[in-house]
Amino acid sequence: MISQKYKEMLGAKSVIREMSEWAGARAKEIGKENVFDFSLGNPSVPVPQVFTDKMIELLQSRDTMELHGYSQSQGILAVRKKFAQFLNQTYGMEYTAEHIFMTTGAAGAVAHAVRAVTQPGDEVITFAPYFPEYNHYVNQTGAVLKIVPADTQQFQIHFEQLEKTLTPKTMAVLINSPNNPSGTVYSEQTVKRLAELLCEKQKEYGHDIFIISDEPYREILFAGVKAPYISKYYDNTLSCYSFAKSLSIPGERLGYVAANPNATDGELISAMCAQISRGIGHNCPPSIIQIAVAEVLGVTSDLSVYETNMNIIYDELVQLGFTVVKPGGTFYIFPKALEADSVAFCKKAMQYDLVFVPGDSFGCPGYFRMAYCVETDKVRRGMEALRRFVKEVYNK
Amino acid sequence: MISQKYKEMLGAKSVIREMSEWAGARAKEIGKENVFDFSLGNPSVPVPQVFTDKMIELLQSRDTMELHGYSQSQGILAVRKKFAQFLNQTYGMEYTAEHIFMTTGAAGAVAHAVRAVTQPGDEVITFAPYFPEYNHYVNQTGAVLKIVPADTQQFQIHFEQLEKTLTPKTMAVLINSPNNPSGTVYSEQTVKRLAELLCEKQKEYGHDIFIISDEPYREILFAGVKAPYISKYYDNTLSCYSFAKSLSIPGERLGYVAANPNATDGELISAMCAQISRGIGHNCPPSIIQIAVAEVLGVTSDLSVYETNMNIIYDELVQLGFTVVKPGGTFYIFPKALEADSVAFCKKAMQYDLVFVPGDSFGCPGYFRMAYCVETDKVRRGMEALRRFVKEVYNK
Repeated sequence: MISQKYKEMLGAKSVIREMSEWAGARAKEIGKENVFDFSLGNPSVPVPQVFTDKMIELLQSRDTMELHGYSQSQGILAVRKKFAQFLNQTYGMEYTAEHIFMTTGAAGAVAHAVRAVTQPGDEVITFAPYFPEYNHYVNQTGAVLKIVPADTQQFQIHFEQLEKTLTPKTMAVLINSPNNPSGTVYSEQTVKRLAELLCEKQKEYGHDIFIISDEPYREILFAGVKAPYISKYYDNTLSCYSFAKSLSIPGERLGYVAANPNATDGELISAMCAQISRGIGHNCPPSIIQIAVAEVLGVTSDLSVYETNMNIIYDELVQLGFTVVKPGGTFYIFPKALEADSVAFCKKAMQYDLVFVPGDSFGCPGYFRMAYCVETDKVRRGMEALRRFVKEVYNK
Repeated sequence: MISQKYKEMLGAKSVIREMSEWAGARAKEIGKENVFDFSLGNPSVPVPQVFTDKMIELLQSRDTMELHGYSQSQGILAVRKKFAQFLNQTYGMEYTAEHIFMTTGAAGAVAHAVRAVTQPGDEVITFAPYFPEYNHYVNQTGAVLKIVPADTQQFQIHFEQLEKTLTPKTMAVLINSPNNPSGTVYSEQTVKRLAELLCEKQKEYGHDIFIISDEPYREILFAGVKAPYISKYYDNTLSCYSFAKSLSIPGERLGYVAANPNATDGELISAMCAQISRGIGHNCPPSIIQIAVAEVLGVTSDLSVYETNMNIIYDELVQLGFTVVKPGGTFYIFPKALEADSVAFCKKAMQYDLVFVPGDSFGCPGYFRMAYCVETDKVRRGMEALRRFVKEVYNK
């Protein structure tokens, strides 16, 4: 019989998708170049040529049954070895292949990580503002997502609120730095304080608490900003990664879970993820993409345009009197709206063909997200529209 | 805290994997060519050149952000349209893109289909002998897999046993024709009788019962055998397909669910699957593979070698006095073992470097599976080993 649960979900469309669909419809009316669509977090820089060349080389030279054959259920062993070595060199870790589980993007990684360290009824904590899909990644496993209210001063962690949210049922803390939607990068101080607090709580509760660290924006960092590698600071860490943003290949669905070798059962977690896969449709990512990416590890698309765009937008927002925290990375910025109701604010902006996403979607009403993975010229023209909007609607 | 459920699964390794690992180890001792490994269902014929050429052409000509960009959550619309058209032409159906949901292989398809039409506690029926992963695809959703004992005469459906297994909690029947492990193709008579019975039961129980039809071997059919397209005979059918076997690309994880347009909520099921995806790690298959496969629809690898191999093995088995049903398709055959304990039979065969999988794994003890996706020369040499084995151990 048709599942009512999923049928009912059809009514509740993602607001982000809705804004983006409106933008698409509007583009048909007035031309795509005239819609300032800051709604979707879709990479806007080309895939590195070396990746394309590697794909072609593999197709021309490899035995087809080897190239397109089944990978082991944890992912191709040779690929996992390379990823482990790369992470060790880059972040001073001590992973081996057995700590790595290949997934279909960061979504697949988080979905597996949550199942590996919780059971139905357990609590997973995350911090507003947060990526709304976390609700699904967590709640559909039977665990319960608890939200810590935002530190709207800096979008670091509101530790007093976190302490109130932790309970003996907390089995995992899901973090995302560099952050979607705020663009904030957790400081070393934040990460250390989080690690200390969770160590204390592990002792107090007498069980493990895992950090599930969602890191698809790890390489998109702006001048002078360092992103602490979370797993370096806390043993019970599962790092979830995706190549979607760093290589501009979101459609190819490649990511991984890397379990800290010192985590409880750290050497078993990847194998456990392979067991989890059996029930959720075998998330093994495509063989050719696994092999090609492993050959170009460390290469990224030219990500510098995101910083260029961020500076243009940030400066303009400051000039216009917005309250805004300067992003340390990603391709997002999360200013305070000019009225308390950020949905109303975003709707008014649409009259100027500016497409933003209200902070309500991220558990942080009163703010709005701009995704600036957009051509720089359009960003500039978008700022003109923003000035008109702010002047005409808010007299600023 | 580490999930005990998945940790405990690590102990219970798949027997098929275990046999295959033994074969790998043995190959290191005596050379791969001397191990007659009939354990794994891995395609053994090359990928069609036209697929490789298409992949290279796409990489050389398309905009990289378009080629590797996010696909819609149900799969790339243009691709789904082509798949719908192809199915309509081939099987006389009336699908549109909205009935198609792209998945990571047949595993992803079945995992989504089960969730779409059951809720925890519901029953899903399948027929022995059956693919053992069905236990995971179904039981990890919270539904319960019920097994109908085998019709060992023909490996069609044992309808008396099916009637005993149906209850008001039955929400789906999971079938697999052409069948792994028996190689049997359901006759039109079988399919019609199943459809009639389920129609009756739908009325009697007052709710829908779906057929989830797992069809990865749809194109591997032997001389004179026709495979009825299940969905043509029963409206409430979700057809689950994979290109793993037909194009020899199992590692690229491409498949789909096609919901019969006349099924209850047939036009919503694909969209519901996209909602299901959000909780299990977004199974969207890789963009470039979606696009490339859509360009070569109808093309398959040269699958004729499987029939050649089947005939060699079938004739030999008959000659040696085995009880065996002649396969109508796939690359499997499922003879009766020469002693009641088929695990003991398979272990004895290993002493002759023959690797079979005991029927116990498929819910059908006393039989064994041979996967003949193996070079024909090796099949021939394997038959020599089989003759020696049967003569020396069973005096036949």
